[in-house]
Amino acid sequence: MLIVKKFGGTSVANKERIYNVAKRCIEDYKKGNKVVVVLSAMGDTTDDLIAKAKEINPDPPKREMDALLSTGEQISVALMAMAMAKLGVPAVSLNAFQVVMHTTHHHLNARFKKVDTDRINAELDQGRIVIVTGFQGVNRYDDVTTLGRGGSDTTAVALAAVLNADACEIYTDVDGVYTADPRIVPDARKLKEISYDEMLELATLGAQVLHNRSVEMAKKYNVPLVVRSSLTNAEGTVVKEVTKMESMLVSGVAADKDAARIAIIGLKNTPGIAFRVFDLLAKKNINVDMILQSIGREDSKDISFTVDQTQAKEAVQILKENQERLTFQKLVEEENVAKLSIVGAGMQSNAGVAAKMFEALADVGVNIRMISTSEIRITVLIDIDDVNVAMKSVHDAFIN
Amino acid sequence: MLIVKKFGGTSVANKERIYNVAKRCIEDYKKGNKVVVVLSAMGDTTDDLIAKAKEINPDPPKREMDALLSTGEQISVALMAMAMAKLGVPAVSLNAFQVVMHTTHHHLNARFKKVDTDRINAELDQGRIVIVTGFQGVNRYDDVTTLGRGGSDTTAVALAAVLNADACEIYTDVDGVYTADPRIVPDARKLKEISYDEMLELATLGAQVLHNRSVEMAKKYNVPLVVRSSLTNAEGTVVKEVTKMESMLVSGVAADKDAARIAIIGLKNTPGIAFRVFDLLAKKNINVDMILQSIGREDSKDISFTVDQTQAKEAVQILKENQERLTFQKLVEEENVAKLSIVGAGMQSNAGVAAKMFEALADVGVNIRMISTSEIRITVLIDIDDVNVAMKSVHDAFIN
Repeated sequence: MLIVKKFGGTSVANKERIYNVAKRCIEDYKKGNKVVVVLSAMGDTTDDLIAKAKEINPDPPKREMDALLSTGEQISVALMAMAMAKLGVPAVSLNAFQVVMHTTHHHLNARFKKVDTDRINAELDQGRIVIVTGFQGVNRYDDVTTLGRGGSDTTAVALAAVLNADACEIYTDVDGVYTADPRIVPDARKLKEISYDEMLELATLGAQVLHNRSVEMAKKYNVPLVVRSSLTNAEGTVVKEVTKMESMLVSGVAADKDAARIAIIGLKNTPGIAFRVFDLLAKKNINVDMILQSIGREDSKDISFTVDQTQAKEAVQILKENQERLTFQKLVEEENVAKLSIVGAGMQSNAGVAAKMFEALADVGVNIRMISTSEIRITVLIDIDDVNVAMKSVHDAFIN
Repeated sequence: MLIVKKFGGTSVANKERIYNVAKRCIEDYKKGNKVVVVLSAMGDTTDDLIAKAKEINPDPPKREMDALLSTGEQISVALMAMAMAKLGVPAVSLNAFQVVMHTTHHHLNARFKKVDTDRINAELDQGRIVIVTGFQGVNRYDDVTTLGRGGSDTTAVALAAVLNADACEIYTDVDGVYTADPRIVPDARKLKEISYDEMLELATLGAQVLHNRSVEMAKKYNVPLVVRSSLTNAEGTVVKEVTKMESMLVSGVAADKDAARIAIIGLKNTPGIAFRVFDLLAKKNINVDMILQSIGREDSKDISFTVDQTQAKEAVQILKENQERLTFQKLVEEENVAKLSIVGAGMQSNAGVAAKMFEALADVGVNIRMISTSEIRITVLIDIDDVNVAMKSVHDAFIN
């Protein structure tokens, strides 16, 4: 078997944890498996490097930011190889230049184009455990790129895909994917399996178990993922194409508290006005999520939408700068809102899921501000203070 | 003009110093020069990385040590590029993979084989300041190598050689090469010029201004070096092939307090016995420096020699393990000794230099334990407590 194992920054934050990871990898190796390990930067290393950069230049060139950030994973892979050597197992660390991990040119947000396998296979054939830097690549100019936060998951999936790995195990500090955050919903259950699509919706919606781009790639190349705990031997959750469904309508409830709602009030009711609003925002790379348009009086309308809180200030500023051209009267921004979503492949063939969700919310007196849906997801915008009670009630209604 | 400028770890230890270096480089750039900057790791970074490695594995694989250590310079070059960007000047950082800096395969102690110029020239042609990681390279297996302590000097000289630079400036915390350590000899003078050979002897003998391998390479490729201070605008010392000599017999006095003397007493007076001793030590990579052989009684002789203090314990152990085969009676190790050297191209054509040195030592009551000479150097071994008074007296005799 060829196994790709990915460990995040907290799993390699100190000597003890590095040895813990080394031992887990060696277990698989000693059973005769080929083992490829993908690591993130240790603990707070990436944050520390960002702070160092911002001290020098609050707006550092992205290319240099990537050159800087990529050192974090280089440190963890070298130290891991040293730990394995100490445990008597041959291991070798490889960075993105050595693999080579080819990406697009976009700094801080690159995507894999091609991953070479010669060097890794040569090292595996020599009987070595291969430890690869997560999160980074090299673009066609031979410059270092990074994949954005959580990019190490994507590195692991990309390697599993090109190496035809038999398993791709993503180790985190939770022991799998839950039907809801167990800190909020004590009754939440761990899922044995979940489909790529469902996992994708959950990953996008604030369940921070897997990076959504890694799930997309796993789906595209049909890489079987397992989400497991680096601290226990619990079984974890398998992410794959077709699930047995466990006869569940809804496989997870997720909340995202990082949303902000912006309402544009009193727009002239002329054709193309909505286009102008969202085109402006798109040009500044601001991702708009839920959108609601309502007719106010006969000659005006209101548009409200949600964005990430981190982008709210910029969105408001751009809109204000264009108030005249957009012909609106007032702008309202709210940050005390949250998105609550249910995800389930089963809801495609079942009517009444939305109604049941709204009922569960009404039962506990939670007001719905906005609604958006996909084939396998329903999301509502609610007051942030209602999140916990809403999540429990919805979880109860569908899962327990 | 194309100028290569090298700055050591203390020159880039914090934000203020990074900006200081950035500004100095930009001055040259704004005069229309092409500027290539070579940097070491910031402050104590390399020591910190070594400590981290030793915590994980007291005897880490050298290959992984190189992979780890190379991150230090990658951090400084990226931060420097960010500082220059903030100052409005286009700059780009390059690591050893990007340049490419080809080296031999020897980890922790690699030597340059070939340095590519395409990428650097392309960046210079784009009007950018190019900032290169010192101290590191890539071997033919695509593995990261390092050049050993002080290796950044060698990186700068290698780049100056292949780029046909008009100047190679090595910035340190002193403002040039002195006739002796000014902390010991207040009368010491800064040299305007010194020859490669003299600088090489001084570098080897404990004047820690330049890495001796960098001087060797500068001599080989006739790269004009300037040693300057990163803190002042003082002129510095030029290191080049032929010097005007400033009509000086001796251009420098240097002391090395890291020597140890080992005496092997009562060896059988048979042919090949000295060979056996030094062959044993050579096989363990122990560098022997001064050697003195004396006939004791008719059937025995004594051999004494000096080694670096760091290798003394190992040398003694190896000799003791072979006491029977080497037929000696007693072993004496002393660490309270020091080497005092005078260096000067002028002494080749002048008799009486040694006599004058010994007289200066006798004048202040300093006992000479051993003597060794080269064409342009005389070294004596003395008691460590005598170093300062001896250095002053010798300096007075020749230089002031």
